[in-house]
Amino acid sequence: MRGRRADHKRGLALVKPLKLHADRLFPADAKTRDIARALYETVRDLPIVSPHGHTDPEWFALNEPFGNPAELILQPDHYLFRMLYSQGVPLEALGVGDSEEAKAADLREAWGILAQHYHLFRGTPSRIWLDWVFAEVFGLDVRLEEETAGLYYDTIDAALKRDEFRPRALFERYGIEFLATTEGALDPLDHHRTISDSGWSGRVATTYRPDAVVDPEFEGFAQNIAAFGELTGEDCASWAGYLAAHRQRRAFFKRHGATATDHGHPSPATANLQTAEAAALFGRVKHGDASPQDAELFRAQMLTEMARMSLDDGLVMQIHPGSHRNHNRTLFERFGRDKGADIPLAVDFVHGLKPLLDAVGNERELTIILFTLDEDTYSRELAPLAGHYPCLRLGPPWWFHDSPEGMRRFRRRTTETAGFYNTAGFNDDTRAFLSIPARHDLARRIDCGFLAELVAEHRLEEDEAFEVAQALTYGLVKDAYRL
Amino acid sequence: MRGRRADHKRGLALVKPLKLHADRLFPADAKTRDIARALYETVRDLPIVSPHGHTDPEWFALNEPFGNPAELILQPDHYLFRMLYSQGVPLEALGVGDSEEAKAADLREAWGILAQHYHLFRGTPSRIWLDWVFAEVFGLDVRLEEETAGLYYDTIDAALKRDEFRPRALFERYGIEFLATTEGALDPLDHHRTISDSGWSGRVATTYRPDAVVDPEFEGFAQNIAAFGELTGEDCASWAGYLAAHRQRRAFFKRHGATATDHGHPSPATANLQTAEAAALFGRVKHGDASPQDAELFRAQMLTEMARMSLDDGLVMQIHPGSHRNHNRTLFERFGRDKGADIPLAVDFVHGLKPLLDAVGNERELTIILFTLDEDTYSRELAPLAGHYPCLRLGPPWWFHDSPEGMRRFRRRTTETAGFYNTAGFNDDTRAFLSIPARHDLARRIDCGFLAELVAEHRLEEDEAFEVAQALTYGLVKDAYRL
Amino acid sequence: MRGRRADHKRGLALVKPLKLHADRLFPADAKTRDIARALYETVRDLPIVSPHGHTDPEWFALNEPFGNPAELILQPDHYLFRMLYSQGVPLEALGVGDSEEAKAADLREAWGILAQHYHLFRGTPSRIWLDWVFAEVFGLDVRLEEETAGLYYDTIDAALKRDEFRPRALFERYGIEFLATTEGALDPLDHHRTISDSGWSGRVATTYRPDAVVDPEFEGFAQNIAAFGELTGEDCASWAGYLAAHRQRRAFFKRHGATATDHGHPSPATANLQTAEAAALFGRVKHGDASPQDAELFRAQMLTEMARMSLDDGLVMQIHPGSHRNHNRTLFERFGRDKGADIPLAVDFVHGLKPLLDAVGNERELTIILFTLDEDTYSRELAPLAGHYPCLRLGPPWWFHDSPEGMRRFRRRTTETAGFYNTAGFNDDTRAFLSIPARHDLARRIDCGFLAELVAEHRLEEDEAFEVAQALTYGLVKDAYRL
Repeated sequence: MRGRRADHKRGLALVKPLKLHADRLFPADAKTRDIARALYETVRDLPIVSPHGHTDPEWFALNEPFGNPAELILQPDHYLFRMLYSQGVPLEALGVGDSEEAKAADLREAWGILAQHYHLFRGTPSRIWLDWVFAEVFGLDVRLEEETAGLYYDTIDAALKRDEFRPRALFERYGIEFLATTEGALDPLDHHRTISDSGWSGRVATTYRPDAVVDPEFEGFAQNIAAFGELTGEDCASWAGYLAAHRQRRAFFKRHGATATDHGHPSPATANLQTAEAAALFGRVKHGDASPQDAELFRAQMLTEMARMSLDDGLVMQIHPGSHRNHNRTLFERFGRDKGADIPLAVDFVHGLKPLLDAVGNERELTIILFTLDEDTYSRELAPLAGHYPCLRLGPPWWFHDSPEGMRRFRRRTTETAGFYNTAGFNDDTRAFLSIPARHDLARRIDCGFLAELVAEHRLEEDEAFEVAQALTYGLVKDAYRL
Repeated sequence: MRGRRADHKRGLALVKPLKLHADRLFPADAKTRDIARALYETVRDLPIVSPHGHTDPEWFALNEPFGNPAELILQPDHYLFRMLYSQGVPLEALGVGDSEEAKAADLREAWGILAQHYHLFRGTPSRIWLDWVFAEVFGLDVRLEEETAGLYYDTIDAALKRDEFRPRALFERYGIEFLATTEGALDPLDHHRTISDSGWSGRVATTYRPDAVVDPEFEGFAQNIAAFGELTGEDCASWAGYLAAHRQRRAFFKRHGATATDHGHPSPATANLQTAEAAALFGRVKHGDASPQDAELFRAQMLTEMARMSLDDGLVMQIHPGSHRNHNRTLFERFGRDKGADIPLAVDFVHGLKPLLDAVGNERELTIILFTLDEDTYSRELAPLAGHYPCLRLGPPWWFHDSPEGMRRFRRRTTETAGFYNTAGFNDDTRAFLSIPARHDLARRIDCGFLAELVAEHRLEEDEAFEVAQALTYGLVKDAYRL
Repeated sequence: MRGRRADHKRGLALVKPLKLHADRLFPADAKTRDIARALYETVRDLPIVSPHGHTDPEWFALNEPFGNPAELILQPDHYLFRMLYSQGVPLEALGVGDSEEAKAADLREAWGILAQHYHLFRGTPSRIWLDWVFAEVFGLDVRLEEETAGLYYDTIDAALKRDEFRPRALFERYGIEFLATTEGALDPLDHHRTISDSGWSGRVATTYRPDAVVDPEFEGFAQNIAAFGELTGEDCASWAGYLAAHRQRRAFFKRHGATATDHGHPSPATANLQTAEAAALFGRVKHGDASPQDAELFRAQMLTEMARMSLDDGLVMQIHPGSHRNHNRTLFERFGRDKGADIPLAVDFVHGLKPLLDAVGNERELTIILFTLDEDTYSRELAPLAGHYPCLRLGPPWWFHDSPEGMRRFRRRTTETAGFYNTAGFNDDTRAFLSIPARHDLARRIDCGFLAELVAEHRLEEDEAFEVAQALTYGLVKDAYRL
């Protein structure tokens, strides 16, 4: 350890400072920046409302210390390892995956690889999020690079062992008012029960994500359906029983705080079959050997079924379509899902959503929040749809587009047709708990910058911009997600 | 009434001022803004040339006072009621539609609903257009909000009863040099005849829009074809007679000032069948029970037929493709067409237009003006096509894209490939007569801002920018529409 | 001649100055511009590396003087004559094409037509490139317009006769470190041999472009295959022999400096058939009468074959998909290929590339550089693909998008997902040798401006921006093309 510290000293003479600029992410024009800064001052300290994300409820249930830096920051973050992989770094070297090689990876070395390649992230949101975590959470004041890798590892590793870096402490320090996680339909929600039984004041809710029992092409679909029947006591060999099982699980999720469902389909196709047709379709797909056409039709039908159930139970529906999951076959076979190889697809909301909208699109009591990875649909499809149908709201820019430029494109292409009030605030959509405030801060800064541009061009009055900034940060998300 | 005025007084203490900023819509950068302002000064007062729109010729024929504020401003404007509807306002409450409930709506209350929801339009062009109308036409100096709804209603209502707010007076006050309306092929054009017989100096022309007798899926197509035959005396049971009927009506429209035709098809598909094939196709579709494929093929064939007729009679052809009309089935069944539920579609001009372009694309005497709702086609398809084919010009950003950001995207994505001189100036494309100058003013400001950016970045010389500003405002539209 | 000079004098009183502004193409904001200028100072004089282009190797082999201004600047430049054609100028009047009329065109008059229509190019990159050539290469200090056409013609014509305007002299004056040309698989590469035998220090390499023997829809495909067999001595009637012929020619091209191949397919479709299937497919297409489906499948299969050969021989693979070649049938029949009538198409890289990527996508030793004309794919498909697959790099904005706005869209839409280091520097992609430095200069200015915006918004540290500017200008292109 002493040797390491000496290394750090030596490195420090050469390394660059890490300092977050107070005006970061604001427009460069001085007059516009002044407006942005003033707007931001009124929203920077508002509580964080995180209605859609992928943190692990076990963290808040058990409140054990997080692991080491590589396990916490690098290994679960597909933004990071996909970029490293694109430049020739084997995933095993990062300790990603279940192989012997991966398990044998030296975590300190894995962290060093990230440090050596940190220049790859220049201009990406990952760099912004990580720098915030390093500076604000861990108090680091030099930039991550090869020379500072050890200093970083040691500093973060030591901090994580301290009580104030445990999950609940960070949750409170971060000013999180509400945090939704996402669980599959078969999840027992034990951690959520533990959290609510614990008397802790933090509000952590689940979200009903039934893809594994809705998508006939999901790995293990037939077994999932069997488990679904067992769990609920419903006859999931029948269409009626299968739907009843969903209703039961939705109610169960609601009791564990859920205010929303989430649906990650390959396309936004929906269908509205007659009951007999739907039952026959279910009969064809339930064994897990559906044709691609039947699989797509069943997913489509289920979106409409879910919308109808939402009308009954009040759960807000989120549709996240258009990702070609596991595009890299070799990688999928060796490493499994979620290894940075999901690639967006062109989608068609106009024809895709029509059956669902014909069925329930005019219901004022229904809320469906739409997301897209196909930015072409912002001005062509999504803003016109959300600017008309009472049930539709636009979710924030998603995944690859959860970034400064992505957010600007979203606002520029949707606002003039859908307005601000058909949008649903910000989602961090992340597993990377440490960076949640960084993500919300980025969104607040970009939104304030966008509003400032409207004010500077006299397209919006300044007093109105302050109101809109509040709405985009806090009001709209609470309203859309019924919090 | 006295009670109301007291209300107004009380309200006024709280309300916000309404003031149009002289620099609105110009870029924020000070140096760029100075250039934009200088450019704008040279085009702000140029006459309005409006070659494509949907005002009612009856207004100018009869010159009767406009109705009340709700009837004039709110009820015909689908931009307004679609947004209100998206946030849960029933159309009936606005008096929109033919139901008993709609007819019973209190217009003053309908106006109040608009006022209460006026924040929904923040950041939208509707807000910019309306504020201009309120301030410039009616002299209002407080913002529309719940507290000022009554003041607005009374002020506008009183003004509309005065002679200087009659259609012809506003037409003259607005400096309109030319105004085109749009009429179906079966329209007798009586109002246009009345206008030209009246000796009034205002130039109001019609446009030939034959969708109802060209689109086999149009409501009442078979009856329309029958009426077409009756009106023209041609045998519209035969392909030759049907085409002759078009030729006759086009000539009739030309005599009533038309310099253009307009075609609102679902797609930009064109076809160029042999005469016998076309005749057989007409035989299959003329009874109004065409298959979707035949309907699409017939519309496609008719675009090429219309282009050929344009070569003969010199009418400029406008193609407005890619809107999924009446997407909301329930709304369509209850309220009919044009209720804010038209949603853009992805389109393919490259394959779609090829048959027509193979037939007449190299004709220098033909002008076809293309519009799109699919902005993806700007740089990928439309600019390359218009930058090559002699017959093609690009219409301005259309409908949802008739907005500050929409116009910027249009210029940024088309200019580098098609240049400025393959574009066709501005269209207001509106029923909302009162706002026509606001719309042209918005376009002039945005175009000047775009040119100013080019000058500020030394991508265009300043003396050239002044020439281009004139062309975009006045020269190109007169040239493209042969005025 | 004296008369002409007098004309020039007379004209000069009226004409406008031509002066390239030192700050051209930098952002307008003063603070951002300062940063851009500082960045640009460090890259402006770096050598030109041109790894993809279409200059004629004969120029550098024979080093004869270039022809006259019209032949050199106007007639080979489809950007120029497509725009003139779009505004009604017949190609024959420019001397373009092989017709008697074209051959009879007066070149001085053709130049005059360009001058008269020079305003059409306002706001286009052609204007920027040409003005640079006029000012920097020929020392002209007045703008091209009708009045200066003669002065221009005479000045350029006279200069071209001087030794310092011969191809090799310009190559050296331009500071070109590497220049790749593109030759078909059947090309004997005599000019490249002459160049390397000549002892001249200039590095001019070829690129293997096998479209004529890979695309069954290419004109004369069957004869091309026959010639391919003859040239290589391989049995090109068999699949194995045909592949062996490719291998042989690739090796031959490598010996003439090639480090890359290039593939101009209508779509990015790839396939990976079993050998027997591929052989059977080749059997079906080799006679040049393939069905469209077979032709597409064969091209698709060949991309994967080429990728496999690249793994063996190390040639970098470039895929340029998505142009509808020769869209204007009449023009193609009268004038042949490459007459400004190629129009971009929507493409699908996600499904298209999957078979190839399944086969070789994880190979670190393979480099495939992707180009697109469909900008929608930047953020939706290309950046996510290149930000994951080790073999993929993004080529610069191509063709219509090789422009200030095009480059900004590219950086804004790709950087946040793919980063800078999965891109491959700049390509000039041009036949217009004279303008090569102008094109690289434009790219350097725009990239520095983009980086300056990131610095001004504190999204990138200034010291990092200097490193990235070097990489974008010089390092990445040498790395990606293995120079």
